[in-house]
Amino acid sequence: MGKPLPKMASAPNPLVVNVRARHCHLTPEAVEELFGKGHRLTVHKWLYQEGQFAAEETVTLIGPRNRVISHLRILGPCRSFNQVELAYTDAIALGFEIPLRLSGNIQGAPGCRLMGPAGFLEMAEGVIRAARHAHMHPRDAEFYGVNHGDFMKLRLGGECGLVLDRLLCRVDPSFKLEVHIDTDEGNACNLQPDTACELFR
Amino acid sequence: MGKPLPKMASAPNPLVVNVRARHCHLTPEAVEELFGKGHRLTVHKWLYQEGQFAAEETVTLIGPRNRVISHLRILGPCRSFNQVELAYTDAIALGFEIPLRLSGNIQGAPGCRLMGPAGFLEMAEGVIRAARHAHMHPRDAEFYGVNHGDFMKLRLGGECGLVLDRLLCRVDPSFKLEVHIDTDEGNACNLQPDTACELFR
Repeated sequence: MGKPLPKMASAPNPLVVNVRARHCHLTPEAVEELFGKGHRLTVHKWLYQEGQFAAEETVTLIGPRNRVISHLRILGPCRSFNQVELAYTDAIALGFEIPLRLSGNIQGAPGCRLMGPAGFLEMAEGVIRAARHAHMHPRDAEFYGVNHGDFMKLRLGGECGLVLDRLLCRVDPSFKLEVHIDTDEGNACNLQPDTACELFR
Repeated sequence: MGKPLPKMASAPNPLVVNVRARHCHLTPEAVEELFGKGHRLTVHKWLYQEGQFAAEETVTLIGPRNRVISHLRILGPCRSFNQVELAYTDAIALGFEIPLRLSGNIQGAPGCRLMGPAGFLEMAEGVIRAARHAHMHPRDAEFYGVNHGDFMKLRLGGECGLVLDRLLCRVDPSFKLEVHIDTDEGNACNLQPDTACELFR
């Protein structure tokens, strides 16, 4: 008919929005302290981003007031630092005040103690709420007209829909288009597999 | 200077946004079953709406899989029906699926068991997530240009700000202007006393 296609129909990749429940990232040394000498993480489930996985292994998080969260999932592969990502609801239940940070930016964030079957790990720092963000391939960034470090908005529909502001764009050729929000954000709008979502500036 | 005042400066009442943590409303009979014959609720803290209070009394909620939430606050005064209001995060922790409902609309919503110091209460139905809403005096409704039953949006600012869609307006001469959101919504945006908020259509 000579009419342009609606914008979404020409997006290079489908928009995937995933809730990241509380979890941690650990160094190989931390895994050994918690699970024993020579232990390596086992893949429980592959995640959407290439090479990332939820491990079989979980730990118990012990908060500053000795309150615990059990079965805290470890995400793999191992990293060069230890980091725990909680929702604010989790942090309040534990009696923590935690900062909103980009993953990897843990300086000065409160610490905690992790307990595994083979030992404890004292984390001096590294408990954060991860800032909402979108992983984007450069083709996705081009389509949406954004650069690495820009902010976008994410509309999530339904009976208790909302628009999340300040969603950070992280652009890398190794990334697949995927938005990560946490359980507070996902439950605030009752995110379901069929919830309508729209990424916009 | 002859310029009109910004719109908010002329609002009849300040906009108050409060997070309602999980709680329950009970009938006088339910209070007696849980706390003993003749027992009446004691005021712990008066709430913003005239005559409403958080009671000293709390109960233990026992979910469908025998998981519990302790210290579930009772809000008074008593009502003509029993109702439990949870966030989806609470419901998921308990292993429930609960519907989004306006307070008072509990037909067909799942039940639970409540435990008090003097006995148990079996609720056949009444566990809901309360839909976000604004209490408004008719003067507030007039200012915002809305009627009872209309929907508005609520913008909450800050580092992880958002806009909540489908906020229901409840207009009554006995109401003071106040938005009620739940802990998932409040924690999604890290609502603090100084968080900027704006109500709009």
